[in-house]
Amino acid sequence: MILNYTKEAQEYLKIYQTELFEKVLPFWVKGNLLDRENGGCITSLDRQGKIYNDDKSVWFQGRCLWTFSALCHRYGLRQEWKEIADSAKVFLEKHCIDFDGRMFFTVTKEGKPLRKRRYMFSESFYVIGMAEYAAAFGDDEALKKAENCFEMMLSIYHDPSSDPFKITPKGYAETRNERAAAVPMVLVSSAQILRRCDKAREEYYSQIVCEITKDILQYHFHPEKQASLETVLQDGSLLDNPAGRTINPGHSCENAWFLMSEAAFTNNHELLKNALNIFDFAFERGWDPDFGGMLYFVDLNNRPCEQLEWDMKLWWVHNETLIASLMAFAMTGEKKYWKRFECVHAYTFSHFPDQEYGEWYGYLHRDGSVSHTQKGSLWKGPFHLPRCLMLCSELLEIIAENGKAKPIL
Amino acid sequence: MILNYTKEAQEYLKIYQTELFEKVLPFWVKGNLLDRENGGCITSLDRQGKIYNDDKSVWFQGRCLWTFSALCHRYGLRQEWKEIADSAKVFLEKHCIDFDGRMFFTVTKEGKPLRKRRYMFSESFYVIGMAEYAAAFGDDEALKKAENCFEMMLSIYHDPSSDPFKITPKGYAETRNERAAAVPMVLVSSAQILRRCDKAREEYYSQIVCEITKDILQYHFHPEKQASLETVLQDGSLLDNPAGRTINPGHSCENAWFLMSEAAFTNNHELLKNALNIFDFAFERGWDPDFGGMLYFVDLNNRPCEQLEWDMKLWWVHNETLIASLMAFAMTGEKKYWKRFECVHAYTFSHFPDQEYGEWYGYLHRDGSVSHTQKGSLWKGPFHLPRCLMLCSELLEIIAENGKAKPIL
Repeated sequence: MILNYTKEAQEYLKIYQTELFEKVLPFWVKGNLLDRENGGCITSLDRQGKIYNDDKSVWFQGRCLWTFSALCHRYGLRQEWKEIADSAKVFLEKHCIDFDGRMFFTVTKEGKPLRKRRYMFSESFYVIGMAEYAAAFGDDEALKKAENCFEMMLSIYHDPSSDPFKITPKGYAETRNERAAAVPMVLVSSAQILRRCDKAREEYYSQIVCEITKDILQYHFHPEKQASLETVLQDGSLLDNPAGRTINPGHSCENAWFLMSEAAFTNNHELLKNALNIFDFAFERGWDPDFGGMLYFVDLNNRPCEQLEWDMKLWWVHNETLIASLMAFAMTGEKKYWKRFECVHAYTFSHFPDQEYGEWYGYLHRDGSVSHTQKGSLWKGPFHLPRCLMLCSELLEIIAENGKAKPIL
Repeated sequence: MILNYTKEAQEYLKIYQTELFEKVLPFWVKGNLLDRENGGCITSLDRQGKIYNDDKSVWFQGRCLWTFSALCHRYGLRQEWKEIADSAKVFLEKHCIDFDGRMFFTVTKEGKPLRKRRYMFSESFYVIGMAEYAAAFGDDEALKKAENCFEMMLSIYHDPSSDPFKITPKGYAETRNERAAAVPMVLVSSAQILRRCDKAREEYYSQIVCEITKDILQYHFHPEKQASLETVLQDGSLLDNPAGRTINPGHSCENAWFLMSEAAFTNNHELLKNALNIFDFAFERGWDPDFGGMLYFVDLNNRPCEQLEWDMKLWWVHNETLIASLMAFAMTGEKKYWKRFECVHAYTFSHFPDQEYGEWYGYLHRDGSVSHTQKGSLWKGPFHLPRCLMLCSELLEIIAENGKAKPIL
């Protein structure tokens, strides 16, 4: 590394640690997240922390299990964290898995099923939650369950007809057969976490990450168009309509740092180059030149976006951009990534944190004004933000010490 | 009627007619709406009228069939209108109906199926399109088809298990069994249009409208909460979560004028009172005191809305509010409804029309700035706006003549 950012990195580190331990975690841990009556987590908390919807997101049972296990794993066991992880784990296993092994999407506070979707994201968060719990608390049974669920996801990815959930297909594949980037993306990050939590099977998971990374690069990464695309045809070719032209800069940044982390693990320079390209394209297209901040969706050819929320500024998009910026800087030492980090940090920390009640607003209008004051919902809870604060802290420590970047998932 | 608004009404009438014939219809009729190669209508046109998505909305095949038939029916046959109606009709019958009688949601430009949804809105627009076409051009076969499709919808409404489309249920009815207001609403307006287009069966359709109106008032109308609710439990009781607390002011205004129109048809004062209440509640809750315009969604108890687009200003919401305001004034002569019309008109006409390329923007940020420049999409096309301009013109004529309000659907 040529440049020395020790002092700046130490100052940012202080900000990220204060945010995590004093502003964000207390909102959830001292608040109404944990359902002491029924077990599990309720994430739909308003600005002050009061529950406005007591239905439970299955994603967030798994995500809370991951976050509070990761906190214990990283910073040492705290009873208040373990209590949430334990409760989420019990609730997940008792109420969130259907008889066919697939998981629900939402359940009532008591755990009765409300909705089950075709997508296997509930499963992916179960996998990373159980794996992290296993590693944090030495629970081999939890690891086994994570691995079994991951194997099911993998077999559905390779052969959709093996899906035990026989839901009516969403579209007509014989008319148009699409691939969604989110699926290989969660498989890569799940396999990376499993690998870290199960050192004995390191080689097996590395092989899987390598294979699926190839799919992402082959089908979704389009350097000739300076973009990675969310939805492509089966052979990776462009679908020239709003879905096919959709760029999701937040997703691309998240995917980019998953791949940078893999490049660090495997010391793969070619992969690093591709990951940095994905990040650069996403940032260049996603950054809003008029108001600052990252746009939620962008059209490849600047044709109209269909999503009503396309130009809103979402907290998690900024979380992922911050991680990607620091990871890119830690791996390359290139000044432009430090500058990018500082630019995104300035926007993010001046717009999203709620100075009065803690935690962050999730959604801003394009001009940066707050559109939603709630702190949580079925889609927002203690995941992207605490993960960002943890991983940025780790990266800032490395940068402060002028150390070599290491895999962060 | 006590107050005389002849002069004002005549001035507004000029504005509405100019908007319809000079600004809105030419955008579609002289533009790329009609697919001359494959037949049918493409509604995803950008600000200037260029196609950015050539997939076809089945809703809009039926809606275009309705609009361009209604124009001929109302203003006399014009070949350019009939050509669009004919083309939409042929495309609908050839490509948009599945083997089980249920209709698709989207198809490719050539008519290959892309998506079929559980909701029967494609069917409702087919019904009103075919019925209006039958009345405009004296096509008895089209009327018969409209009636058969309506009977299928009705039987699904009364007994969901009779639905020939055996799609996996969306949720677990045994956990929570909900009713959606949109279903009885489209049945009421479809039956009203069928009644007008098939005078021989007037009594039959009146009976149906009467029955279903009872369901709307019994289950969705909650005067004790000063609201009509989009989603309630089977017995009409409140579901205390974001879906259950959702008020959709645009829907409520649209529903209100369907019911006012029914009150005019049946000379039912009790129904008029309820319809005016629905409208008043919707306007009082929906009007944005900070920036003007009608909000898209409002929470019954001012708890957080989940929809990212809750505070956006949508063109169709304003179309429906304009119709409801004039209808309420035409039926009651109450000054407050004229004032409401003038207030909504001022906001609407100063924010939505595109002065440069014609037609209207569909979506504004809360503060009134334009968020989407396209004129059409799979959800926006020549329906709400031309219908509003036609019906408001009709109501303004009645008001200018100091005439008695008549049913407008």
